[in-house]
Amino acid sequence: MPAMARGWPQPITIVIDVLRASSSLTVMFDRGAGRVFPVAGLDAARRTARELGALLVGERQGVPPDGFDLGNSPRKLRDMDFAGRDVVFTTSNGTAALENVRHSRQVLMGCFNNASACCRRALELARRHEAIIGLVCAGQDNAFALDDGVCAGFLVETLARLSPQPCQLSDAAKAMQRLHGSFGSALEAFEHTASGRNIRRVGDDPDLALCAAVDTSRAVPVLRPDGSLTA
Amino acid sequence: MPAMARGWPQPITIVIDVLRASSSLTVMFDRGAGRVFPVAGLDAARRTARELGALLVGERQGVPPDGFDLGNSPRKLRDMDFAGRDVVFTTSNGTAALENVRHSRQVLMGCFNNASACCRRALELARRHEAIIGLVCAGQDNAFALDDGVCAGFLVETLARLSPQPCQLSDAAKAMQRLHGSFGSALEAFEHTASGRNIRRVGDDPDLALCAAVDTSRAVPVLRPDGSLTA
Repeated sequence: MPAMARGWPQPITIVIDVLRASSSLTVMFDRGAGRVFPVAGLDAARRTARELGALLVGERQGVPPDGFDLGNSPRKLRDMDFAGRDVVFTTSNGTAALENVRHSRQVLMGCFNNASACCRRALELARRHEAIIGLVCAGQDNAFALDDGVCAGFLVETLARLSPQPCQLSDAAKAMQRLHGSFGSALEAFEHTASGRNIRRVGDDPDLALCAAVDTSRAVPVLRPDGSLTA
Repeated sequence: MPAMARGWPQPITIVIDVLRASSSLTVMFDRGAGRVFPVAGLDAARRTARELGALLVGERQGVPPDGFDLGNSPRKLRDMDFAGRDVVFTTSNGTAALENVRHSRQVLMGCFNNASACCRRALELARRHEAIIGLVCAGQDNAFALDDGVCAGFLVETLARLSPQPCQLSDAAKAMQRLHGSFGSALEAFEHTASGRNIRRVGDDPDLALCAAVDTSRAVPVLRPDGSLTA
């Protein structure tokens, strides 16, 4: 899902998988995680975690697969101490999205939790590199997800508010901004989405309010040339 | 831009290029056109028109290219008589979009002008083939265009209103519905888009109100196996 940047060379890209990969990453870095290695496949994730002696974190169908140390519930991850630990992380949609944005000059992960911190960093990088900022929604099963779109709209608002110059917005950015404005709150939007329903189905309801909370974190996950995320 | 169908096998697809290809096609069929051959490239369009003895209609940067009989202004096309004439038609975005939806079971062109007629036809085909309905926005320069998104939202509304059963909507369909609802009128939305501004720039302002008018036509352009459109 393009937003501000589609087709432009080497944008600063913010990847959004608000339910729940972006939010989980932010929480893990807040709790002291060192490097997080996003891995698309399950087998590769298990192998990489073994090789690195890293914690194995993630989900399929919303729950931790066999042999995983932890799932993809930011609420539960918040109770853990990641100090000095590396993590291998695999989710159904978020980690796959990261594979598609390697052409970017820099890739950040954004969500409601780190909205202002992430947008400040993106604006700073955009100014330094004379680049534009692109928002990429992870979506679900290769299709647009309302939750990510609403979060993209909020990040567009935040970028426009924090930018020292007036922002030029693409049609897609304007559309997401209006989409966000059409809901009373992020939590209300989450109720309308398949991702939101799935999270309730697996009993992780408290994650919805947690993922909807604005500016609870200053951690901005950044993709490094070696494929790991750090904050 | 996916809407109700992305990834599903053989949907009934409605292609939307509201400013102005879908609207122009509707007008040409209303004025008696026989077959319309959408052609992507300029040279191919000129050659095909010569071979078929067809009228050559279309635009680049909003105006008719050299040697074209007519441009892509529905307002101007409305004054012409197409009775019994075949047409070769090429536009910057609309004809390219048609190339990408050949996997569909059936492809229709939709806009505000033919909204009810197009949605009725799509629902009838969907029921007959037990298929789902997909909406594809032509967009501009491979990016999302607000005008097409707003029109898609209106067609989602119309499909939901005319469908005898409750419609299951994708997240993208819901998003476009909300986008449409966020504007007071289609004309207001057109003022916010690059396409709308381009149409003013070339002096075709009356096209905006014409393209925003609902249910002024019962013509539904349908893509045939030979690549032509008929109504």
